[in-house]
Amino acid sequence: MTSAPRTARGARTRAALLEAAEHVFAELGYADASVVRITERAGVAQGTFYLYFDSKLDLFDELVDDLNRRVRRAMSEASAAAPDRLSAERAGFRAFFAFTAEHPALYRIIRAAEFVSPRALHRHYDRIVEGYAEGLAEAQRHGEVRPDLDPDVAAWALMGIGELVGMRWVLWERDAEGGVPDHVLDQVALLVDGAIGRRTAPATTREENGS
Amino acid sequence: MTSAPRTARGARTRAALLEAAEHVFAELGYADASVVRITERAGVAQGTFYLYFDSKLDLFDELVDDLNRRVRRAMSEASAAAPDRLSAERAGFRAFFAFTAEHPALYRIIRAAEFVSPRALHRHYDRIVEGYAEGLAEAQRHGEVRPDLDPDVAAWALMGIGELVGMRWVLWERDAEGGVPDHVLDQVALLVDGAIGRRTAPATTREENGS
Repeated sequence: MTSAPRTARGARTRAALLEAAEHVFAELGYADASVVRITERAGVAQGTFYLYFDSKLDLFDELVDDLNRRVRRAMSEASAAAPDRLSAERAGFRAFFAFTAEHPALYRIIRAAEFVSPRALHRHYDRIVEGYAEGLAEAQRHGEVRPDLDPDVAAWALMGIGELVGMRWVLWERDAEGGVPDHVLDQVALLVDGAIGRRTAPATTREENGS
Repeated sequence: MTSAPRTARGARTRAALLEAAEHVFAELGYADASVVRITERAGVAQGTFYLYFDSKLDLFDELVDDLNRRVRRAMSEASAAAPDRLSAERAGFRAFFAFTAEHPALYRIIRAAEFVSPRALHRHYDRIVEGYAEGLAEAQRHGEVRPDLDPDVAAWALMGIGELVGMRWVLWERDAEGGVPDHVLDQVALLVDGAIGRRTAPATTREENGS
């Protein structure tokens, strides 16, 4: 809502407020988090807050957008280097789980958004799905994803796999490195590959071709 | 926490309080929902509330358990009649989406549980996964599910598909019947079948067998 800060110091203050908010919202929930708590944690005078954000709700919306941008960047950077679609999926999921381990607040904040700011919740999911569905459609054109798949439904479904596996194995029970165990990541890759990968031509078709 | 009601009238009062709570929690969120609002909506005297529940939190936990039992029953009844695993999956997902359409409060209440009662949240997911993973393991023994799958990871992944597809196509945009469009259900069945179904024997193996 408010304009972007025009100085490097302004950008730092804004970032400090967002980081403080991430912790305070996750710890106390939206209702009990106050601007005072957030400015105290950020080491910023209370009056300064309103140079950057209109309200607690405005800050909340910006925080959801900020986390959203960062999780998408982490996933796309991880999968960009992969040699094929399956490795890209695996790398993307690994990056999502690692981001979740570093920012466990993401889940709590997104779930709070259900009540606090449904608009921010929709935008969060829509933005992730948009890029994901585009990537699937592109892979479909290259023959790496089965042709009968609707990339939009597939993107929502795969996001659901990441969300619940991340909840179970990152938020509830992390391994030593804070990510999901390799075995779980292997299983996710197996499921995703089966779900979206091209089928081997069935036996009948091959025999028909040969006759 | 409190003991089960011993009369039919008691059971009706308890059910009325649970139903009222489902609506009040979903409309106002946990923090703003009060015992007074819930008893008013249920048409029950406020003092009567404490014959059935120890507190607002106790009622919340019971409500999560109640919705959990009902959604699991709806899914298992729908899939029990199916002739094979794939039809059973499709029927189970359809029943889950239909239940979500009838009880949109389920999502809001489960998401509130993240803050209000993490124990109830864990129990909700664990119970669904437990039955689901057992069903997958059984289907694996009958050769209907790929043998290299970990039923537990698969159950969490499939539950994630249901959760986000349900959010997108039931909560956000329902079709005329209140369920997900057939096209989306078809795509979900396709994805799930690909994810967990047995692979067609790959070409190389078949040629090796033939040589």
